[in-house]
Amino acid sequence: MSAEPAFPASAYEPFVRLAEAGRKPAAPFRPDPDDPVFAMHRGGKIGISPTVDVTDRAALALAYTPGVARVCTAIAEHPELAGEFTWVSNTVAVVTDGTAVLGLGDIGPNAAMPVMEGKALLFKRFAGVDAVPICLACTDPDEIVATVAALAPSFGGINLEDISAPRCFEIEDRLRDLLDIPVFHDDQHGTAIVTLAALRSAARVAGRELGALRAVVAGAGASGVAVTKMLLRAGIGDIAVSDRQGLIYRGRDGLNPVKAALAARTNKAGLTGSTESALKDADVFIGLSAGTVPESAIAAMAPGAIVFALSNPDPEVPPDVAARHALVVATGRSDFPNQINNSLAFPGVFRGALDTRATRITEGMKLAAAAALTRLVGADAAPGYVIPSQFDDRVAPAVAAAVAAQARAEGVARR
Amino acid sequence: MSAEPAFPASAYEPFVRLAEAGRKPAAPFRPDPDDPVFAMHRGGKIGISPTVDVTDRAALALAYTPGVARVCTAIAEHPELAGEFTWVSNTVAVVTDGTAVLGLGDIGPNAAMPVMEGKALLFKRFAGVDAVPICLACTDPDEIVATVAALAPSFGGINLEDISAPRCFEIEDRLRDLLDIPVFHDDQHGTAIVTLAALRSAARVAGRELGALRAVVAGAGASGVAVTKMLLRAGIGDIAVSDRQGLIYRGRDGLNPVKAALAARTNKAGLTGSTESALKDADVFIGLSAGTVPESAIAAMAPGAIVFALSNPDPEVPPDVAARHALVVATGRSDFPNQINNSLAFPGVFRGALDTRATRITEGMKLAAAAALTRLVGADAAPGYVIPSQFDDRVAPAVAAAVAAQARAEGVARR
Repeated sequence: MSAEPAFPASAYEPFVRLAEAGRKPAAPFRPDPDDPVFAMHRGGKIGISPTVDVTDRAALALAYTPGVARVCTAIAEHPELAGEFTWVSNTVAVVTDGTAVLGLGDIGPNAAMPVMEGKALLFKRFAGVDAVPICLACTDPDEIVATVAALAPSFGGINLEDISAPRCFEIEDRLRDLLDIPVFHDDQHGTAIVTLAALRSAARVAGRELGALRAVVAGAGASGVAVTKMLLRAGIGDIAVSDRQGLIYRGRDGLNPVKAALAARTNKAGLTGSTESALKDADVFIGLSAGTVPESAIAAMAPGAIVFALSNPDPEVPPDVAARHALVVATGRSDFPNQINNSLAFPGVFRGALDTRATRITEGMKLAAAAALTRLVGADAAPGYVIPSQFDDRVAPAVAAAVAAQARAEGVARR
Repeated sequence: MSAEPAFPASAYEPFVRLAEAGRKPAAPFRPDPDDPVFAMHRGGKIGISPTVDVTDRAALALAYTPGVARVCTAIAEHPELAGEFTWVSNTVAVVTDGTAVLGLGDIGPNAAMPVMEGKALLFKRFAGVDAVPICLACTDPDEIVATVAALAPSFGGINLEDISAPRCFEIEDRLRDLLDIPVFHDDQHGTAIVTLAALRSAARVAGRELGALRAVVAGAGASGVAVTKMLLRAGIGDIAVSDRQGLIYRGRDGLNPVKAALAARTNKAGLTGSTESALKDADVFIGLSAGTVPESAIAAMAPGAIVFALSNPDPEVPPDVAARHALVVATGRSDFPNQINNSLAFPGVFRGALDTRATRITEGMKLAAAAALTRLVGADAAPGYVIPSQFDDRVAPAVAAAVAAQARAEGVARR
């Protein structure tokens, strides 16, 4: 039995995954008081702040009873006023059931909260959106749909987060049908938007057209499926997807409906076998699998290859190893060039949707968001610069403007 | 058809109740731009604020991925750490279905939001509690219970608000049984705490003991029922309750189970008839009815009478009229002395419960809160001062300390 902290201090230490940890420490957990991660999290990372000053009875009579009753009455008679005189039109619920949190898996709603608070922090920091973390005690899709639908009057949009596949697809589809506010599963669409944007810049660096590229996507979870669909929509030449059992192809035994639909639209060559075998002569590798790919498989790709090893914190192939063979290498990590991170998309996407009071986030709006990110890189695209930095102040406004314009063009904007 | 604003500018104009307004204005509603109430509400009254600074990649790596994963893992293994490293232990959901908002009735969840935001504002202003307004699209008690239970991991406590009686009683009871965090229907218990506190001070002014007083409560909704129960628990001499059909007595036809239970414990004399008739020679009147009481009924009360005309914004009897006959007069309004307002109770009650991570708010904790308020007035009690001001900075800390001490004494505290 040891009194040492169970986790090292560096933020970049590999995660101690629950599955790997296996046993419970015998002693109560005491984080190292000098650990900057735990110091940052003490008491949580967000709070509620009044935006009006209530320092005396007169102000209270305006902000609360009796004055507030006139605002309530006005909204009851004219529901559209809720957008003007409540915080709802600037808020997003960040909803999870804790079943697929980061690479940690099903750790439950309580343990998922730090990620949802982090998301809320980024929503505010990058786009001024008020996001509220909602961690649910239920995992049944019917219960999640009913709960989120019940909450909907409180929010201007719903950001679904870290819900495991394939449940996440059904839950999002049903909520999109039920609600007249945007519902956006960020693990799917945020990743897809940023990946498409980076791939277009990478193709520019390689002097290639998207339609001429053959890609391999490792991982058929939420992000793998969404990235694949978006690349198809954007006109990628061909794309093959693999899951833990290898490549997905038409007629493979035991495919769930989501994977069967993917099989019908991907892998034109009908490849079977492993991710590794499909990488031979491929132009693009996109890793969203939490798996590994050997250096030899990267070496066997076509000349000028593009490698997006996006698993976090451990890329499918170390970026320095991939760079020996590939022209462009991107990861999900902030300590290497070309960080493909959802935070480049979701703040601006919701900003644009809220600004226009859009009823939904359409495929066109997602494509517009990706195009805006690619435009920001523009002709500056280089092997080490295929996507803007998270701290590039142009990002969220550019994404928001593109999303808002597209919402208006498609007639889903309410203002 | 008129383009004039439908509502006057003064915060103290009587409410235009939906039922009274009757018709919808023909033109879209445009609040007077100089109206201070609508100016105060533009864009809402609360926001989410980061409590940590994330200005560069290094900070982001601590607050979000990859650092955050270590906090998630620690909480998954040691659930008690959620109280220390998330915002949950300082948060309260303010939950309504919009069925009984102020005196406005069933105006729905969207129109209820300004009140819930106001509540969140007061929670923060008076006690530093982060409160999140949750306005539900459902009104069925089963659905409300299921929804709130699903949300519970996200919050340290649940403040139920403006849910109509008798549904509110069942919903609160079931949630208290289901959850291990405090569930508190403020319309009931907040009102009861402050009313008891003020009545004790008023009795002191009158030189009377609580056990010697006969009270009449007009209104058997959420607050009328809760005030009656609390006064019984505190040892009031006798108490009769009336609803729209008059006094409640054992064996009256068509009593719902809540009123039948009240009938069994109140109205020792078995009075029948009207509120007005019961007031003859009564010592205390407590109005929670949105009705009216004629001056003659107040005049017929016992000498040294105590009149709490708490309907808002229109007291059951104008306070200046009541003062012709009564020794102590209180209202729910901020523009008269002795304002009986829930905000004297709920911020401190939740502060005390959260500080101790109490599993519930017991009857003892509510009585302790009331006692703390009475103690603050103490020997300074006078006809115009039976309850502290909302802006008396001693209030929330005193209530919180009393509630926390009682939680520890009763063994419901977790720290």
